[in-house]
Amino acid sequence: MDLFGMLYLDELSHGLANLSMFPYFDMAHYIVSVMALREQPGALDVSRVSPLACWFSSMLYCFGGAVLSGIMLAEPPVAPLSNGTSVLLASIIWYLIFYCPMDVVYSCTALLPLRLVLSGMKEVTRTWKVLGGVTLAQKKYKDSLLVMIAIGWARGAGGGLISNFEQLVRGVWKPETNELLKMSYPTKVTLMGAVLFSLQQTHYLPLQKHHLMLFYTIFIVVNKTRMMLTGSSSSPFAPIESALYKALFTGYSPYAALTGELHKAGTDNSITNRTACCGTTKESKENRSSGQNHSSSPGGGVESSPKAKEASEAEDSKKIN
Amino acid sequence: MDLFGMLYLDELSHGLANLSMFPYFDMAHYIVSVMALREQPGALDVSRVSPLACWFSSMLYCFGGAVLSGIMLAEPPVAPLSNGTSVLLASIIWYLIFYCPMDVVYSCTALLPLRLVLSGMKEVTRTWKVLGGVTLAQKKYKDSLLVMIAIGWARGAGGGLISNFEQLVRGVWKPETNELLKMSYPTKVTLMGAVLFSLQQTHYLPLQKHHLMLFYTIFIVVNKTRMMLTGSSSSPFAPIESALYKALFTGYSPYAALTGELHKAGTDNSITNRTACCGTTKESKENRSSGQNHSSSPGGGVESSPKAKEASEAEDSKKIN
Amino acid sequence: MDLFGMLYLDELSHGLANLSMFPYFDMAHYIVSVMALREQPGALDVSRVSPLACWFSSMLYCFGGAVLSGIMLAEPPVAPLSNGTSVLLASIIWYLIFYCPMDVVYSCTALLPLRLVLSGMKEVTRTWKVLGGVTLAQKKYKDSLLVMIAIGWARGAGGGLISNFEQLVRGVWKPETNELLKMSYPTKVTLMGAVLFSLQQTHYLPLQKHHLMLFYTIFIVVNKTRMMLTGSSSSPFAPIESALYKALFTGYSPYAALTGELHKAGTDNSITNRTACCGTTKESKENRSSGQNHSSSPGGGVESSPKAKEASEAEDSKKIN
Repeated sequence: MDLFGMLYLDELSHGLANLSMFPYFDMAHYIVSVMALREQPGALDVSRVSPLACWFSSMLYCFGGAVLSGIMLAEPPVAPLSNGTSVLLASIIWYLIFYCPMDVVYSCTALLPLRLVLSGMKEVTRTWKVLGGVTLAQKKYKDSLLVMIAIGWARGAGGGLISNFEQLVRGVWKPETNELLKMSYPTKVTLMGAVLFSLQQTHYLPLQKHHLMLFYTIFIVVNKTRMMLTGSSSSPFAPIESALYKALFTGYSPYAALTGELHKAGTDNSITNRTACCGTTKESKENRSSGQNHSSSPGGGVESSPKAKEASEAEDSKKIN
Repeated sequence: MDLFGMLYLDELSHGLANLSMFPYFDMAHYIVSVMALREQPGALDVSRVSPLACWFSSMLYCFGGAVLSGIMLAEPPVAPLSNGTSVLLASIIWYLIFYCPMDVVYSCTALLPLRLVLSGMKEVTRTWKVLGGVTLAQKKYKDSLLVMIAIGWARGAGGGLISNFEQLVRGVWKPETNELLKMSYPTKVTLMGAVLFSLQQTHYLPLQKHHLMLFYTIFIVVNKTRMMLTGSSSSPFAPIESALYKALFTGYSPYAALTGELHKAGTDNSITNRTACCGTTKESKENRSSGQNHSSSPGGGVESSPKAKEASEAEDSKKIN
Repeated sequence: MDLFGMLYLDELSHGLANLSMFPYFDMAHYIVSVMALREQPGALDVSRVSPLACWFSSMLYCFGGAVLSGIMLAEPPVAPLSNGTSVLLASIIWYLIFYCPMDVVYSCTALLPLRLVLSGMKEVTRTWKVLGGVTLAQKKYKDSLLVMIAIGWARGAGGGLISNFEQLVRGVWKPETNELLKMSYPTKVTLMGAVLFSLQQTHYLPLQKHHLMLFYTIFIVVNKTRMMLTGSSSSPFAPIESALYKALFTGYSPYAALTGELHKAGTDNSITNRTACCGTTKESKENRSSGQNHSSSPGGGVESSPKAKEASEAEDSKKIN
């Protein structure tokens, strides 16, 4: 029985691994990406003022991962443009979503059931992109785990990682926030995927490639669906993250007592540690500043910059991917 | 008679195609570029405070196209520096225009007749740069029209396209505006040239290369001269642009009625469609916001960002190229 | 006697040239770099909010030169990550300095005697990095002096030159200042080193490589130690810079009288010419604006931007390297 189950899973994972992304899954990725752009504040204004900037922004949403990993590997960032069919497909979808008469296309795709299916399909492409990045990096840098993780991550979550510069195309500049300072769920799950696939490719993870593809794909699709249905933005990693953070990054510094306390509050409300750090009451902020006074060292003035605080407090920005 | 005319044109275009840009036309390009930098607000201050930042900025004005197309094709952006003669020439011109005793050089070159000749010569180099970019891209990406257009455009209008980062060198940061959001005339005419030369090189445009070079060069030189003499900044493409925009980018969305109306107003005043979009009266802006209320979709909050508005309203910046 | 001195120096310089940077000097470089990051305003906050952004920032401090010179030569900017041992070493040091229990490591390294030794060792790595950049550039671009200087400079002072983008990782954006507008001492001394080593490599400077290495290393170590002990930030080049500036960049323009006067004031106070330009009294600023009114030319409005002034006045930022 167990063997049968294994065999069945094996067949399923082989089937999945041989799935072609090209027409349908890629289309779903383009549709969901362009819709995410359209829902950014100010994006509709830009689409009326300058269709070219809007198109370029859309292409960065659709091909951001390829552009970023290209730059990181010193390959032409213009290369995605050379794949005429993909660019044509993405451009048609961009046109239909932004400028379709009666706004028919956007109205349809924004319906929850269709959106759910499309988002699920988009998540499937993530597996392929992360794996593509990892194997590409492995060809150039044999067994360099860090490079493999970096390229896999960049390829899978590129749109989010370059969001500062994508926004600049639309005339928006928000330096106080970026995906490294405050990771969104897609960026986190892509990083996890990049780590897993890199470990698998270097044989540190004793798992077949197609099995890992199946497990990872099911995990991200189920999670995305759950998050869309419940409307919750809580990450499934919150407890692990919180534990890791507590174990590694608090030390016994003048900060420690404070951040520990903050964390307890954070996990109680089941929000990620990062949000927890931001959710400081005025009182605890005063504690923190008084704590800093203790830590003033001869070498340099340790002051809290108002900008960094702004950064940790800015929570309004909707994330790409 | 017609044949003779053709033959004569043929000779002329062959002569033009064999023209060497090197000493004189390149010099004109450097002079006009460095003068454009000097006339940027704050540039003279920077030239006194940090000659090095001023020199680097000048080099980006002079070689911006080569740098940008280099980055896009993953070729060393430092390569233009390796052409010692060109850099030396550009540096001498930079020095004379910014620091010449008695300001003799700038005073002379700023005289209208000389400036007219120099600007005309600079426009001639545009043809060569666009064609150079297109053929370079064709070598790497055979028949990929989009890459050829992108590289030709980047090489011809590079200084303008990277202006945000060029300004950063001088300590100026204007994220709310860029050449994609609000194209200046040189950027537009270069894009048109890149499209034409790419079509010619892939044989979609049944025209000889040297004929196209002649026609395009005459067009840009005549236009530049006309614009400098009349002081008008109206683009010769305004009617075509407006028609294209109306046909393609208005759709029947809640915006359509409004943008159509705006456009009529825009073309009446013979300003480009982009300016038209910005020249909204307070009343029409209220219309627009009420229009947006209609288009509020279930998927995401469509709000107009104040930044994007700022972007479309900012009209003070003088453009490079 | 003189011969003996020469021989002795020769041996010493050979010994120095064969010194391996790897474990100890590299470690000192990482420690001093990460400490410099920790002492940036707001950096400690970032280290609590997002350890990943903090780690990435630290890596840019440690490997910024390799990343920047990689980008400039179209080599993968991700390459430094492929050197696992160095990244591991730098990461351990990052972890100990930011998160060590009781803050033991930072408290120790911040003690003046230890810090003095570490800073001296870090300066030694500068020689190796500059020379590495120059020889790397020479392999690709034979005899192109400018490229060699640029790459040598980028490799030696990379962290400082990309500081705007490093700050962006931490959510800080200060466009009004950069290392080109207002060079810090490490950036200046690295530029000087890049010029010297480039001249030596192209045989314009009649000196043996290992002799130059010895002299340059001694110069930067002694200078750094002197600056740390006296707490002075005055550059040893101030008089030369001031003389060069006066000779080359003042011309007889409407500005000249003014800047000359400013300079005298500047050198009297034994501060660099750049500071001098900024240290204008209100009165001289009025002079300057009235001077500008004279220079108003037909070609363009020469206005002083408030941003550029801000830039020259901003002096609070602590510099990298």
